Amino acid sequence: MDTYSIDQDSLWMARALELAHKGLGTTSPNPPVGAVIVKNGVLLGEGWHEVAGEAHAERRAIANAYLRGHAEDLVGSTIYITLEPCSSHGKTPPCTDAIIAAGISRVVYGAVDPDERHRGRADAVLQEHGIAVRSECCAATCELLVRPWAYSVLHKRPWVTAKIACTLDGRLTRAGLRWLSCEESVRFAHQMRLESDAILVGGNTLRADNPALTIRKPYREVPFVKKQPWRVVMTRDASTLPDTAKVFTDEHASRTLIRENVGDLKAMLHALYEQQGVVNLMLECGGNLLRAFLEAGLVNEWVQILTPRITGGPDALLPGYFMPCERFFEQEELIPSGQDIIIRGLIH
Amino acid sequence: MDTYSIDQDSLWMARALELAHKGLGTTSPNPPVGAVIVKNGVLLGEGWHEVAGEAHAERRAIANAYLRGHAEDLVGSTIYITLEPCSSHGKTPPCTDAIIAAGISRVVYGAVDPDERHRGRADAVLQEHGIAVRSECCAATCELLVRPWAYSVLHKRPWVTAKIACTLDGRLTRAGLRWLSCEESVRFAHQMRLESDAILVGGNTLRADNPALTIRKPYREVPFVKKQPWRVVMTRDASTLPDTAKVFTDEHASRTLIRENVGDLKAMLHALYEQQGVVNLMLECGGNLLRAFLEAGLVNEWVQILTPRITGGPDALLPGYFMPCERFFEQEELIPSGQDIIIRGLIH
Repeated sequence: MDTYSIDQDSLWMARALELAHKGLGTTSPNPPVGAVIVKNGVLLGEGWHEVAGEAHAERRAIANAYLRGHAEDLVGSTIYITLEPCSSHGKTPPCTDAIIAAGISRVVYGAVDPDERHRGRADAVLQEHGIAVRSECCAATCELLVRPWAYSVLHKRPWVTAKIACTLDGRLTRAGLRWLSCEESVRFAHQMRLESDAILVGGNTLRADNPALTIRKPYREVPFVKKQPWRVVMTRDASTLPDTAKVFTDEHASRTLIRENVGDLKAMLHALYEQQGVVNLMLECGGNLLRAFLEAGLVNEWVQILTPRITGGPDALLPGYFMPCERFFEQEELIPSGQDIIIRGLIH
Repeated sequence: MDTYSIDQDSLWMARALELAHKGLGTTSPNPPVGAVIVKNGVLLGEGWHEVAGEAHAERRAIANAYLRGHAEDLVGSTIYITLEPCSSHGKTPPCTDAIIAAGISRVVYGAVDPDERHRGRADAVLQEHGIAVRSECCAATCELLVRPWAYSVLHKRPWVTAKIACTLDGRLTRAGLRWLSCEESVRFAHQMRLESDAILVGGNTLRADNPALTIRKPYREVPFVKKQPWRVVMTRDASTLPDTAKVFTDEHASRTLIRENVGDLKAMLHALYEQQGVVNLMLECGGNLLRAFLEAGLVNEWVQILTPRITGGPDALLPGYFMPCERFFEQEELIPSGQDIIIRGLIH
C-alpha cells in the first residue's frame, strides 16, 4: 500500500511547531519559533527561541547539532523553521548568517515575515549562497502561532485577548463570593495567563476580588524563564486603590503597573508595547472596562467561558445601552471544558 | 468477517423511532409513537400515531399490513413499538387487544409507561395470551422521544422549553428592528414551534414585535394535521393589548388565548394541559417573564441561540438582581447553526 505520498517537510515542520510552542509566553517582544535540522531522515539538532535577547531557534538548533556530534553532518542538511529566519541585525546577529556558516543546504520555513519591507528577504540572502529555500510550508499553522506577534509588529501595540467567565445569562458573578468556572476552566484561564505578557484589570476588580493574577495551575508546566506577567491596573484615581492588595504586596509587586486616568487606550497600549515589550495582553477586567476596549475597537480575541448556570445578578458581562458600533465575532471555536463551554474567536 | 453480532431488534426499533418522529407536534395530549411489524426479516406493515382520538401506532401498523396483503402472515410476526402498548380503554380500545387479535407472536417495545400504576401491565396481558415480550429495547432513545409527554402525564402540566435568541453578551435585541439569529437558526426555532402545542409570550413582546408565532419555515415539512400552536399571551391587563396584533387578527385568531393577571403560573400550566391538552409549551417571551418561570422552577428545557455579536443594549436575556435560587443546566448539547451556536440542555 503506497498510495499516500507523505510530505516529509510537513512532518518535520510539525516537530518544529511543537518546539516553538515551548516558547509561548516567554519570548516577547520576539515571536515563539522552533527549528529542526535533518539529514537523510535523521534529526541532527533542534531548538526553540526561549527569551528575547538570547539565541534564536536556528542558532539553538545548530548548537544542538554540534552538541550531538553532528557538526560534520550539517553540510547537505535541511533546516525546518516555523518562521522566516531573520536576515538583519537585532539584539543577535542575523540567523541567515548562522545557517550559511553551518553549511546547511536547504531551508524550509513556515510563516513569512509579517513586515512587508522584510518579507521574503531571507530567500534572496540564502539563495545567493546556493541554499535552496521552500517558504510557506504549513504556513497557516505557523502563522497562527505568531499571530499576536505579527499583529504587534505591524501595529506597535499588543494583541488583546478578552477573557470572560460568565453564566448562561451573561453574568460575571454569582451571589456571594463563589467560583463561577469549573476547575478545568480555571486551569484554562491560568494557561492563558502563562501565554500572556500582561494582564489588565480595573480598580473595581482589584477592590472587589483582590486577585493575585499569578500563574498557579496552568495545563502546561510553567517554563523556568517565565516571568510574572505585568499586572496593569487601570483606575481613575490611584489613591483609591487599596495598598494591601495582593498585586502591590506579593513577591511580584515590581511587576504591577498602575495606569491612572487613561484617556487614550490605544496610546496606553502603544506604551506597553514599546516600554514593557507586551505582545500578548489579556483583559481580566469587568464589564465597563471591557466595554471601553470594545468600543475603541481594541479587542482582537474573545475567550468566553460559559458556566452552565442561570443566576441573574448585578454584574453583566457588558453593562449599559447599545454600543455605538456592534462587534462581530468570527472563526469561533467551541471548547468543552469540564461542565463549562468555552467560546473562542476573533472580534471584528 | 462475522465478528459483529447485529441486534435485529434494535434495527427495526430504529425504523419505528423514525416513524414516531413523524408524529412530533401533532399527537398531544398523546405521545408520538411508531410501530413496525416484521416476520422473517420482512416488513409486513408500519404506522405511527398522528392525532389524538385517531388510531394508535399499533393499529395503524396492523391496518397497513392488511393493506399490503399480509393479513395471513401476522401469525408468528414481531411488532416493534417505541412505547409500551396501552392496555386500558382511552379514546380508543386498548392496543394489546389489537395485537392479540391480529395473532402477532412477539412484542418488542422501547419506553415503559411513565405511570407507575400502569408500568409493565402490557407485559402481563400479552404474556397471558402466549405472546413473547421484550421491553426496554433502545429504551433511552425511546424515552427521550416521549420525555415531554411522560412529564405531562406525571405532573399534569406541560413540559416547558425556553427558547432564547441572544448575543454573546446576553442581549435579546439589536439596535433598530434587525434580526438577531441567522437563517438556519430561524428555521430551527420554527421547527421548535412545529413540535410545540403552545407558544407563550408576554404583552410586552406582543407590543414591541407583533409576532405571528406561526410555523413558516421549519426544517421538516409541516404535517397536514398540524394545527397552529396555541398562542398564549400573558399580560397584567388585557385592555392594553393592541387589537390589531397579528395573533388577534390573522386566520388563526381562534388559536390565541389571553391569560390576564396570572398569579399562579403553575395553575395556569395545569389548565393549559387539562383544557387545551398542551404537552409541549415553548416560551418565546422576554426576560422578565422568563425570569418568573425560572424562579417558579417551571422551565424544563433551555434552548439558547447564541449569535456571534457583541451589542450591549437595554434588553438583557434575564434582567434584574440575583435570582433567589440559581438554576443549573445539565446534559448540555452544542448545535452549530450557520454562524450561530445553539446551546440546549435541561434546567434544574
